[in-house]
Order: sequence, then structure tokens, then C-alpha cells
Amino acid sequence: MKNLNALKKLAFTENGFDGYLILNEANLTYFIGFQGPVALLVPTNGECTLYVEGKNYEQAKAEGKGFNVEKVKSDENLMDKVAQLAKDSKIKQLTVDAIGVPDWQLLTRRLDREIVLEVNNAPIEALRRVKDAQELELMRKAGEITSAGMKAASEAIRPGIREFEIAAEIEYTMRKLGSGPTAFETIVASGPSSAFPHGGCSDRILREGDFVMVDIGATYKYYCSDMTRTFVAGKPSAKQQIIWEVVKDAQESASKIIRESVPIADVDIAARQVIEAAGFGYDFVHRLGHGVGLEVHEPPSLNQLTKDVLLAGNVITIEPGIYLPGFGGVRIEDTVLVQKNCAEKLTKGPYSLSTQ
Amino acid sequence: MKNLNALKKLAFTENGFDGYLILNEANLTYFIGFQGPVALLVPTNGECTLYVEGKNYEQAKAEGKGFNVEKVKSDENLMDKVAQLAKDSKIKQLTVDAIGVPDWQLLTRRLDREIVLEVNNAPIEALRRVKDAQELELMRKAGEITSAGMKAASEAIRPGIREFEIAAEIEYTMRKLGSGPTAFETIVASGPSSAFPHGGCSDRILREGDFVMVDIGATYKYYCSDMTRTFVAGKPSAKQQIIWEVVKDAQESASKIIRESVPIADVDIAARQVIEAAGFGYDFVHRLGHGVGLEVHEPPSLNQLTKDVLLAGNVITIEPGIYLPGFGGVRIEDTVLVQKNCAEKLTKGPYSLSTQ
Repeated sequence: MKNLNALKKLAFTENGFDGYLILNEANLTYFIGFQGPVALLVPTNGECTLYVEGKNYEQAKAEGKGFNVEKVKSDENLMDKVAQLAKDSKIKQLTVDAIGVPDWQLLTRRLDREIVLEVNNAPIEALRRVKDAQELELMRKAGEITSAGMKAASEAIRPGIREFEIAAEIEYTMRKLGSGPTAFETIVASGPSSAFPHGGCSDRILREGDFVMVDIGATYKYYCSDMTRTFVAGKPSAKQQIIWEVVKDAQESASKIIRESVPIADVDIAARQVIEAAGFGYDFVHRLGHGVGLEVHEPPSLNQLTKDVLLAGNVITIEPGIYLPGFGGVRIEDTVLVQKNCAEKLTKGPYSLSTQ
Repeated sequence: MKNLNALKKLAFTENGFDGYLILNEANLTYFIGFQGPVALLVPTNGECTLYVEGKNYEQAKAEGKGFNVEKVKSDENLMDKVAQLAKDSKIKQLTVDAIGVPDWQLLTRRLDREIVLEVNNAPIEALRRVKDAQELELMRKAGEITSAGMKAASEAIRPGIREFEIAAEIEYTMRKLGSGPTAFETIVASGPSSAFPHGGCSDRILREGDFVMVDIGATYKYYCSDMTRTFVAGKPSAKQQIIWEVVKDAQESASKIIRESVPIADVDIAARQVIEAAGFGYDFVHRLGHGVGLEVHEPPSLNQLTKDVLLAGNVITIEPGIYLPGFGGVRIEDTVLVQKNCAEKLTKGPYSLSTQ
């Protein structure tokens, strides 16, 4: 309930709403601590109402202590119920975090112009991007499990194995250590497909000298981790070694300047300059990184254009890459916690191009 | 491109649009056959345009033959680009499949009232709910892999093992057989949590006599499968056996009447009547099932209220359940293909309450 009080302060005191309707799944998990409910209505005063479908009603009643739990029957519409309660609660300015157009139109009609409706996720985003001690404990654990998964990858990679067989070993290792579902689709992209930042995971058989890009993430109690290493199956060539060193240097240059209050654009530029200086600027085709938490991609975005600064408690990825169509690609990525004076790595896997 | 021609016929000839903007991820996969692009603009005549972010541009150019591939740079807005192209293409009535409110508002402004904008996913939904031979081949394979995963579950279940360790064995088995990422979060819910339809997967250690509800799904080339079995760790009690038999009978009663042209509500009711007759009507707290395809939950919905009828080529789940808070629950689920004269089971796992 700590988070809900922070939300009320931010939304109602500082932004002037008097009701918040939360529909986004990750936002719901953030405030209630478990999954299943479809909506949460937070009034300025009084009890919060959790809406759940019949199949999740008993579970929500068991786990949702401190909430009023309301069943949405199969012949009822959620927006009808929310509109009625908002009116009964004398809400005048209802804000919703995220909503599709049909529901938005229905809710607008049901509120009869008695209640002003707007979409605004910023107050929740602001809370979620600074992790507290309890969240960090879970994210450290997710990082440890992910690192173990990467070790399993490096042990499995050899000419002759299929991409999906490597994924099997990674995911098995992470699950046995207590991971929940993976944070995103495991990427094991070898040979030509390593030149694509999201090269997937196919039935391709690794060949001697292939780049193998492995991008994985465990979850622990809903919190995500995100980590990439690039290996070579067999013996790396001189060119592969050079590209890999450039990417590694870029990651280190960025990591070195990470601390509270640093402009995020500077971090992106620190990595980008290393890659540009080596002549591969055109081949670093994406931003440096992104926030991580209940979602694997969440604010802040680490790019050259943002005006945001780093805050202590941000958890972000640092993932420079070089992608050469027809040749292959290298990305090195860690999930790091922004501390007052440094970056703390939450993923700590093997740092080696060769798996031999 | 066959699907796109079917879409054009349905949308433009029968529904009177002259431009379709596709943003939903599963819809995009359906029409283009790979993942990565963020939007597809389909005009009545002329070439379709795929929009991709920089990081996926090379891959989209390599895989997106027959499309005009357009990069959305990091300082550009997708809605700006779509609006410009819609105007240039002389579109008068633009329909979008699904969109969030901020993008909807931005697009509305950019279209300057020159183009009518509406949200309508129905034409695409109508196409997607009838699977063709190529889709069915992938779904049969996904069903086979899922069935093997369930066999692994039945072999792993015993008093003393943790829920997530069982999930590890299931997912490892499915991955080694070529599954993509799981279709949804693997459920291994034992003891009290088996009484919740979506009981999750925790670190709980199985005890002698626990119900263990296992709900899993492999994917194969993006197509999903969905299957549930309920086991007992150790020796089932008489009450457990009775409940399990009722659920099994309910599933068989529903399966028996499945064929082309049958009202979907009748199928739900066929299962529900068996459970009601046994005195557990109040404990079957959800609909009978749902469509399966590129998404694990998609139309049609199998419930008592729908007016829809089954069509040959629908792939649906049949999943009756009985949930007794404090005692435990049983669900039995298969993914089946609606044929002209029968239901073809795509998941064919073990049918046994006991794992001994």
C-alpha cells in the first residue's frame, strides 16, 4: 500500500486529479503485487476497488487484502461498472493510465460529461522508474539467474548445435534457479542473423566461426532482467575480435560515467563516440538502452535526444552493438542499477568472445 | 500475400474502407509472416507499406519481399508518417485495427478532417478465426510438442518436487522439440492454488495427495497451443477421483457435439450441464474455452451467451473445470480443430489423474 500512497500524493496533490483508473497490466502488478485483476480504481479518499473476472475472483479475494474486490460478471461491462462507481464516489476528474479507443469511447459516454476524463500515465511512470529496496532485491536475484543462464549458453555453444537447443539449455538453467517466465523471447541468433538486432531463435545449426548473439532475461517475482553476450562458435577471426573489442570498449565508456544526475544523452553519446571513432558509427542502429523493471522495456529511454537525467534507483540496460549485414553482429548488454556514484551491474556473466 | 488479398476483398469490397492501418502485433505477424515491423498500411490499390524502427530495418528489407519498407527514425513519429502517406495515397476512409488513445488523438489531428478515421478489427478477426491448411500444419506441430511437454510433467510430478522444477522439465522438453517461446506463462499450481483457475507457478513443494494443475502451451512458428491436465501427486482420494471424472465427462460431452455450424453456446452448455448435474455448477467459474492461433486467446469465445456458430477451420479450446476453494481444483483442456463432422484433437496428452 506504500506505493498507492505515493501515487495518491503525486496524482491528487501535485497533479490535481481526484480519481485514477489503472488498466495497464504492469501498473496493476506494481500497485497490487499479484496478477489477475483487470482494473483498479483509486479515489482520493476511501477504499480502492479491484475489478476481477469470475475466474480470478477467489484468488483476488485471498491475495488482495485492503482492497474492495468487485467481480465483473461475463454479462457485465467493466466500463459501465467503473463509470457508476466513479459517479457514486463523486469523482470530478478521472485519469486513466492507458486505454484502447473503444473502451475510451464507451467510458466517455457513460460518464455523461459529469466527469472529466483524461489519459495520463506520467505519474505512475515517475514512480516506477525509481526502484525501492524491495524491488532491487528481486531485480538482483533476476540478474543472478540471468547470468547463470548466460554461463549455460557459453557452455552449450559449439559448431553443430541448433539455436533452439541452446535456448533450451539457457531456459532450463534459469527455471531450475527459480526464474518465472522469461522476460522476453530468448534470442539465439547465429551467423547471418546475428547482424539483426532482434535476430530471433531458429532451428539453424551453428557452423565453425559463426557469431552467436545471445540475448536473454529471467524474471523473479515479476521483475525482469536483460543481458546480451556475443560469442563465436569455434575460433574467432581477427575481424570478429576487433569488432567485439570496440563494442566492449563502448560499453565500458558508457558504464564509467553512469551515476546520479548525469544527463542520459551523455551516456548514449559516450558509447556512440567509441563506435564512431572505430569507423562503425553507421552500424550502431539503435539507442544505447532502456529502463527495466516489471516490464523489460520501460522508461527511461537511453538515447541521444532525451533531456532526462539519471536518478539513483533507475535500473537500465547498457547495450551498444555493431551490425554488419552479411557478416554478422556483436552486442554486449548488462542491466545496471544507477547508484549515487557509480553503476552497479546486476548481470555479471562471462565476458569472452570465445567459448573454447 | 494471399491473406492480404483476402483482407482487401473483405475490407474494401464488402465494408467500404479504402485504407487499412494495422498496428496490432499478432495481426502484423498474420499478414507479413515475421515479427519486427510496427505498422502496415494497406491501400485499396498499390503497394503496402511496412513501417519499421531502425533496429529492424535490415531484417524487414531482407524478409519483407513485396512490401515497401519504410524506416521510422528515432526523431520521427509513426502517426505523422502514416497520415502523410494516407493523404498522398488519396485515402478517404482509413480504418485502424487497434490503437491507444494518444496515437488516436494525434492521428486524428494529422489527418486534418480530410480522411475519416475509425477503429474496426472485425474484418481481420473474421479472417484469423478460420485457419487455412498452412496454419493448421503449424498448429498440429505446436499441439504435438505441447503433448510431449505434458508427458514430461506427468513424469516429473511427485511429492517433494517444487512447482517451478516441474515447469523447467516441461519447457525444456518443448524447447528441445523445436518450440518457440511458450504461448503463455506455464501454470503448475499445486494444493490450494489448484483451486484458482490461473494459480501460477511458485516455489511450493508438492505434498502427497496434492492436486497439481498443469496448463501449458508450446508455440511453433508463432502459432500457439493450449492444454491442461490435472494430476495428483501420489495416490488420489475418492473425492479427487469423483471430481476429475465429472470434468472429464463434461469435456467429452462438449467434444462430442463439436462440428461445423453448431451454435457455440450449445457446446458450452453441453459441458456445463454435466457439471451442474453432478452438483458443481457454481464451481465452474469460467467460460468453456476460446479460440487459439497466433494468440493463445482469440475469437471465438466459447460461452453461454454468444450467438456465434462453429466454422470448419476454427481452432478452439475445450476446458471445463471445477474449483473448490480450500480443497483444490480440476481442469482438463485440449486444443481442438473444428472439422465438418467432428472435433480433431490437436493436443493428445496423457489422460490420467494418477502419475504413479
